[in-house]
Amino acid sequence: MMKRNEEKILMAHGGGGILMKELVRFIMEKLGSNCDSPLQDSAILDAIPGRMAFTTDSFVVDPLFFSGGDIGHLSVCGTVNDLAVCGAVPLAISLSFIIEEGFSMTDLGRILDSIRSAAEEADVSVVTGDTKVVEKGKADGIFINTSGIGKVPDGIELSSASARPGDIVIINGTVGDHGLAILSMRENLDFGSGLESDTAPLSTLIVPLLEETEGIRVMRDATRGGLAAVLNEIACDSEVCIRIDESSIPLRETVRKGCELMGYEPLHIANEGKFVVIVDPDHAEKVLERIQRDPLGKEAAIIGSVTGSPVRHVIMKTVFGGERVVDLPYGDLLPRIC
Amino acid sequence: MMKRNEEKILMAHGGGGILMKELVRFIMEKLGSNCDSPLQDSAILDAIPGRMAFTTDSFVVDPLFFSGGDIGHLSVCGTVNDLAVCGAVPLAISLSFIIEEGFSMTDLGRILDSIRSAAEEADVSVVTGDTKVVEKGKADGIFINTSGIGKVPDGIELSSASARPGDIVIINGTVGDHGLAILSMRENLDFGSGLESDTAPLSTLIVPLLEETEGIRVMRDATRGGLAAVLNEIACDSEVCIRIDESSIPLRETVRKGCELMGYEPLHIANEGKFVVIVDPDHAEKVLERIQRDPLGKEAAIIGSVTGSPVRHVIMKTVFGGERVVDLPYGDLLPRIC
Repeated sequence: MMKRNEEKILMAHGGGGILMKELVRFIMEKLGSNCDSPLQDSAILDAIPGRMAFTTDSFVVDPLFFSGGDIGHLSVCGTVNDLAVCGAVPLAISLSFIIEEGFSMTDLGRILDSIRSAAEEADVSVVTGDTKVVEKGKADGIFINTSGIGKVPDGIELSSASARPGDIVIINGTVGDHGLAILSMRENLDFGSGLESDTAPLSTLIVPLLEETEGIRVMRDATRGGLAAVLNEIACDSEVCIRIDESSIPLRETVRKGCELMGYEPLHIANEGKFVVIVDPDHAEKVLERIQRDPLGKEAAIIGSVTGSPVRHVIMKTVFGGERVVDLPYGDLLPRIC
Repeated sequence: MMKRNEEKILMAHGGGGILMKELVRFIMEKLGSNCDSPLQDSAILDAIPGRMAFTTDSFVVDPLFFSGGDIGHLSVCGTVNDLAVCGAVPLAISLSFIIEEGFSMTDLGRILDSIRSAAEEADVSVVTGDTKVVEKGKADGIFINTSGIGKVPDGIELSSASARPGDIVIINGTVGDHGLAILSMRENLDFGSGLESDTAPLSTLIVPLLEETEGIRVMRDATRGGLAAVLNEIACDSEVCIRIDESSIPLRETVRKGCELMGYEPLHIANEGKFVVIVDPDHAEKVLERIQRDPLGKEAAIIGSVTGSPVRHVIMKTVFGGERVVDLPYGDLLPRIC
């Protein structure tokens, strides 16, 4: 479809003319969409019974391709995960590209392949999209926005304001993998073998988890700002204290060493396939066991509990036996992580 | 809320830490959102009875501020219009910013004010959002993605494949205003007084139009690629010929002169407040009259009709009495128009 002399994105690919139609057709073919049906301005979807979740995220990750994923896979998973942690079953996503003039059509093809496979993994359809092109030097390769909608089953009421003293805090696996993998690619640092991003569509774990267990009050994915940011948000919104135990937090040795080397706090590092669950203590074991049965939760662990005070604080018992406050990072440790 | 030394966007505003929380709070306050309710990853919306429309658009317009609008106003109207021309009543939009390091907080504030006022005009709520920051030189000020959802009333079945021979073609006003306004700002050209973008939320016209009239088969907004692009799309999707009469197409004298001067075809120039209606001939007068009663349709006109052949062609009777084919533009006449 694309001609040989069009192996790079041209400004003309964004212009609403024949070349834009060709680009859109290339994208739709790659995604396995039906190119023969008329392209409308919006997708029309069947009625969703009950409440609906709606979310958006723009992805500006640098580099575009990294160990364990790329911007395409990430852009689907990030949005699917935002829906899943609200208790929604992801249904449909939109895809909007801002592409820099001169971007390689081959790289665009690789990204589209990743989008397609992530959407298949997560069982969501890409139903609508948009493409813009900006001049060379006015973007950084490609930025992708994905918005998503999902169906919230009856009875699901999750909120970061719902944690109560006595509740148990669970995470579904190791922290910091995504951030360190990005950093090691970007800075060309070798922290050791096996370091790769954890980018994954958590809905494949969370949807059955919510169907099969009870007592889950809060779920949040631990992306920008890491585990520290979500725990602090929950502590603030719920007016509680969250106490965690450093020795119980799953952490790969490469990530621990990499963080030590760079002076980073692993709890501040972004993840793209990790979420925190706050659960009624009576149901904690069952919830943990169900998470561990899933490939995305094999290393899940109970990392702490909720107490009444000091409110709006996250306190960690360190491996040395002391206690310290886990703060939000102030600014940006690792820019453009997602 | 923002401190004096934070008058420009810093990389740290995108990092998931305290500064990002402050930026999000600034945005929410500007938009009139409730900053005290917990921020979830997704908005949870009440059930929408019946079918739903879902759309997305990224906005990269250059310059950010132009006569008749700015990127904020445009980003709301563009998405609202995509919903409206599908027959949907716009309900909620998401807002995702990619901001270049060093961007002025004052300009961000102006853009947010425009977003708020456009959302109020269009009667939609901004329900969820995202903010990313990229290094200086890796974007161009600010890019905005808006996605939107709307409710499609029962009985509405619009499609660009539904035009039939005999149907009447209506446009709601003058063509080319937006594109020429952008061009004149960007190139510092003075084409004459009164030239401004037509950016407007068309739902305020279209929602009552669909309630009060019958016989509308196709609606499309004439954005990138202009009137020529949408008419060609409809001609192709419906397998018909669309014949238009140049003398009946509403065109401001400044736009006509500006296009002449620059060698542009006015039918190829983008609009942001214009839409084409293809209507059953028995209902055309009523539909035209209803459009003309609206402030956004005062200059509406019948510009042509649908015939059986030659299929997939748009043919224009010129002011000189001849006929010519109206093609799609090949590439990009005016980049970054939206």
